[in-house]
Amino acid sequence: MSFWKRLFTGVETTTDSDSVYDRIVFSTNREIDLYELEELCDAVGWSRRPLRKVKKAIEHSFCVVSMYNQSNDFKHLIGFARATSDHAFNATIWDVVVHPEYQGKGMGKALMEKIIDELRAEDISNITLFADPHVVDFYRRLGFVADPEGIRGMFWYPE
Amino acid sequence: MSFWKRLFTGVETTTDSDSVYDRIVFSTNREIDLYELEELCDAVGWSRRPLRKVKKAIEHSFCVVSMYNQSNDFKHLIGFARATSDHAFNATIWDVVVHPEYQGKGMGKALMEKIIDELRAEDISNITLFADPHVVDFYRRLGFVADPEGIRGMFWYPE
Repeated sequence: MSFWKRLFTGVETTTDSDSVYDRIVFSTNREIDLYELEELCDAVGWSRRPLRKVKKAIEHSFCVVSMYNQSNDFKHLIGFARATSDHAFNATIWDVVVHPEYQGKGMGKALMEKIIDELRAEDISNITLFADPHVVDFYRRLGFVADPEGIRGMFWYPE
Repeated sequence: MSFWKRLFTGVETTTDSDSVYDRIVFSTNREIDLYELEELCDAVGWSRRPLRKVKKAIEHSFCVVSMYNQSNDFKHLIGFARATSDHAFNATIWDVVVHPEYQGKGMGKALMEKIIDELRAEDISNITLFADPHVVDFYRRLGFVADPEGIRGMFWYPE
């Protein structure tokens, strides 16, 4: 069984290739330490958001995936993603973040594959996101298509 | 007070310019006649979707706006839009539809302005949507921007 296959079946696993992390585990539990999440977002340079609103957003997300590096009894949040949805047709993935120390090691791919698996398991057929320019190719490699059939992502700004 | 201003303050109004409709009223009630909604979607040529899933999607949308033409005691569904959201930061508008007989009369604009108002009233700052090519300019005129700062809308397809 491949590394990723093992990862996705929930078996904790140790990689041989990199000593930075011991065991990567995923959780869909939304009882997340908000301070730890804020630290993770700080690490990638995101603007701070009120924790009260972050809590509300997590509560009302359809799907939340946290990625941890677990070492002995200690687990450290190294990645996060969440999706809004109508629970029937569409989902939109937001707030995809991987700690800089864990980037470039397939962790973002693993995180995204996990949230896609979760959404597919709930029979969501239309999985969407809005990608910053520097991550468009990353999402392309995961099977996302930009502007399919000319469909454009649009954001409202007050006139 | 302008026509639209009156419309949005909830006062039923009669337009002078077109006898097709008498009074346009909006509702955010999600107790919608699903058969009437299906008829409306049929009228614009959308593929049929299982009503069970449509019901679920409406139940789990953050915001639902129906637009009716009311004449005496009878009201007829002529437009619809809904939005998913995390209730805190982001919303995505889906399923915007206006009956062909009412297109080109400002009804789509009224419908969109109503759902934007609803989302803004809930303090949602990031209002997004995915626009088919032929309606990109329509949304632009409402204040939506395509691919701001190079952000791309992406859709996942199985690899």
